[in-house]
Amino acid sequence: MILQNCSMPPHGAPSVGNGSDATSDWDDWDEDDDTPSSHHTQGYGASQRGLTGQGNFGLRFSNFVKSGGEAFLLGTAKVAINSADYVTIVDTAGVISWSQPYPEAMYFAEIKSPKKESKLKGLKSFIAYSVIPSFNNQPVYRRYKHFDWLHERLVLKYSLIPIPPLPDKQVTGRYENEFIEHRMQQLQLWVNRMCRHPVLSQSAVWHHFLTCGDEKQWKDGKRKAEKDELQGANFFNAIQAPKTPLELSAVERQTEAFIKFTSKMDDSVQSLYRTAQDQMKKCQGPYKRECLKISDALKDLAIAFELDNSQLDTQLNTSIKHTGETFENIGRLYDEGLRHNWENMADTLYEYRGILSSWPDIINIHRTFLGKRKEYQRQRDEGKVSAEDYVDINRRTDVVTYATLAEITHFQQERVRDYREMMHTFLQGQIDFYERVVSELREAQARYR
Amino acid sequence: MILQNCSMPPHGAPSVGNGSDATSDWDDWDEDDDTPSSHHTQGYGASQRGLTGQGNFGLRFSNFVKSGGEAFLLGTAKVAINSADYVTIVDTAGVISWSQPYPEAMYFAEIKSPKKESKLKGLKSFIAYSVIPSFNNQPVYRRYKHFDWLHERLVLKYSLIPIPPLPDKQVTGRYENEFIEHRMQQLQLWVNRMCRHPVLSQSAVWHHFLTCGDEKQWKDGKRKAEKDELQGANFFNAIQAPKTPLELSAVERQTEAFIKFTSKMDDSVQSLYRTAQDQMKKCQGPYKRECLKISDALKDLAIAFELDNSQLDTQLNTSIKHTGETFENIGRLYDEGLRHNWENMADTLYEYRGILSSWPDIINIHRTFLGKRKEYQRQRDEGKVSAEDYVDINRRTDVVTYATLAEITHFQQERVRDYREMMHTFLQGQIDFYERVVSELREAQARYR
Repeated sequence: MILQNCSMPPHGAPSVGNGSDATSDWDDWDEDDDTPSSHHTQGYGASQRGLTGQGNFGLRFSNFVKSGGEAFLLGTAKVAINSADYVTIVDTAGVISWSQPYPEAMYFAEIKSPKKESKLKGLKSFIAYSVIPSFNNQPVYRRYKHFDWLHERLVLKYSLIPIPPLPDKQVTGRYENEFIEHRMQQLQLWVNRMCRHPVLSQSAVWHHFLTCGDEKQWKDGKRKAEKDELQGANFFNAIQAPKTPLELSAVERQTEAFIKFTSKMDDSVQSLYRTAQDQMKKCQGPYKRECLKISDALKDLAIAFELDNSQLDTQLNTSIKHTGETFENIGRLYDEGLRHNWENMADTLYEYRGILSSWPDIINIHRTFLGKRKEYQRQRDEGKVSAEDYVDINRRTDVVTYATLAEITHFQQERVRDYREMMHTFLQGQIDFYERVVSELREAQARYR
Repeated sequence: MILQNCSMPPHGAPSVGNGSDATSDWDDWDEDDDTPSSHHTQGYGASQRGLTGQGNFGLRFSNFVKSGGEAFLLGTAKVAINSADYVTIVDTAGVISWSQPYPEAMYFAEIKSPKKESKLKGLKSFIAYSVIPSFNNQPVYRRYKHFDWLHERLVLKYSLIPIPPLPDKQVTGRYENEFIEHRMQQLQLWVNRMCRHPVLSQSAVWHHFLTCGDEKQWKDGKRKAEKDELQGANFFNAIQAPKTPLELSAVERQTEAFIKFTSKMDDSVQSLYRTAQDQMKKCQGPYKRECLKISDALKDLAIAFELDNSQLDTQLNTSIKHTGETFENIGRLYDEGLRHNWENMADTLYEYRGILSSWPDIINIHRTFLGKRKEYQRQRDEGKVSAEDYVDINRRTDVVTYATLAEITHFQQERVRDYREMMHTFLQGQIDFYERVVSELREAQARYR
């Protein structure tokens, strides 16, 4: 075997420091959120700069190369695996999926009671959220930077799983109540998605995050997670996939169709996201302003009518004034009601923007394995690799394929679930808004009877 | 008496031809609407050029001067008055008003069945509307130019009554169905207002317009109306007012307060009218466009979802597509529903713009009479006018004041009635629109259950 011929190409990915280097700044338990450019925000920044679809490519891919893709394929990786580390893939009537946890292992976690806290005599301040898992009802207190650290660990560990994106870092207005409330909602969505994922929800680092309330233990757990050998390609060793060999061309057709699908979906999610953000701005701006213009014109008419000395019908004047106030209220409903409805939609779309941006990278990793398989097939044909070794390599490529297909299945199931719920909730919010408008108008109209 | 000292000042009003000259172009029964600049459109043009509040000042005032204001005041006018020409003013517990016609003399008239007709082998075309008075149920066919001619006659005849404005002349798009439908609604409003007016509704020229179906008789009636001596100040001779003398300073306070009121009302009506027109444009433009943007983004998402080969939930795809269509429908409702609601409001406000623009002129005529009264009082004090003549002059000034106050009363009663109805109808239209939106959204939402 000529291993140097088979070294994984870095695919032009930028060189980044190793995991523990990149997070060495994070050992201070109380360090402020402002620490610049975590890997998470790098990924987001890239997508902001129009590199949508690349996502955490650099980090995910380079880490994957470092973490022994070749060693896994050749079966030379030497990593210790505990029984709790294993994840299982099942084939149910042709549907490849992650094995679901036992019902008693399913749980959710609630985020609540955001508290503004400060240190260094108020020089630094931050928000701490209570995170309460349903399996123990014990709150732990977590800041954005803890979520951010966790997110980075998950991206490094699970090369084939799109880790849902955290809400944007936002420095200005961070402590305004509406921002805090909204960030909490976004973190709740993130936690919900983590809890629903059959692999992520059972992850040790995630359980450490959900349960550790002791500072010393937290630091120990952090260091342990950062030294986790079962990350990137090494993690593939912990995957228990069906033994049935997969047919290469069928797999390629399936994954290529999927990446085409995600690419189109990414475009339309971007477009709907922009629409939702645009509507949010318009609820706060033009839509509200139009109502206020109508309101002002009506109130002005009521003032004119009050100049009528005959006072023929003062009820009419107060009614018109009231209608003016009604349009003011409707303007407020746009800002305070309908805007949040669009915001809710935008939050789900934001998650999907992040998830979709991971897929090209994941499919590339998978493609690399399929490429390797073809290369080793040639080497076997040339007698450079034994038939026995080739069977093992094939088997291990299939594990990567099974994992990719299982995650595709999970993604599609989540997508259908999420978009059905998103649309239903969105339409309910629209209905609620327009019904409140009708009720305001009815009340105004009753004054003219 | 030194009559030349008392000649009515023209108040800078432009010199216009006499009534029959100005309308000599109108003898052709079939002449097209396009004939330029009738007096009506001159008046509108002035208001368009920012001379709002002046209205038909030139025409109304100069005609009034010509038609013998001085002669009326001095009792030297020699005009024949038939019993049917008299109009009566009553004082009911201090409220001065036009005597209402007997209930059996009350009626309405319906405008319907606009028909596009043409002559000169299609070179000229016009719309003829059926006008059907309730007192005989006999339709007559009238074109815009007939309304326009009638309007001019009424302005010339009734110096102290604001004649409701006709809808704008509009040359482009005149034969589009929506324009014709809308013009018919506007003419109906005009006819309704005519029928509600205790003096105008009993006017001979108006009855000629409502009933004459014969071409020869129409022309005869037209010429007779154009030669009507009982117009402008001469018409005051036909007014039967209460005998109780009026107190000058109280009258001045009342009319000055009223003109201050109409001036402020004019401003706010202009402002609400602009708002309504602006909303109409926005229903047709931005509001509809925003819905179409949302629609497009949703439809695009549905198209993306159709690319999913697993076809996990095709119902979701068609549901999202349907929601996209729902927003398209809502966009259409803005244009086809809500826009017309604003248009209805704008139509009432348009009438009031015209009516309000007549008031400064009417109040000026009244002021001139009060000025004359003071002047003759001085002349009496100087022995230039006999005490007996002065009593008669006072009496005749009171007739003008009674008529002005009666019309103010009518205006205020109409105003309260009109604005109560306008607001009620406007809010009903808004409610109908938003309820249809809710119903569309509910139908869309049901697809996600």
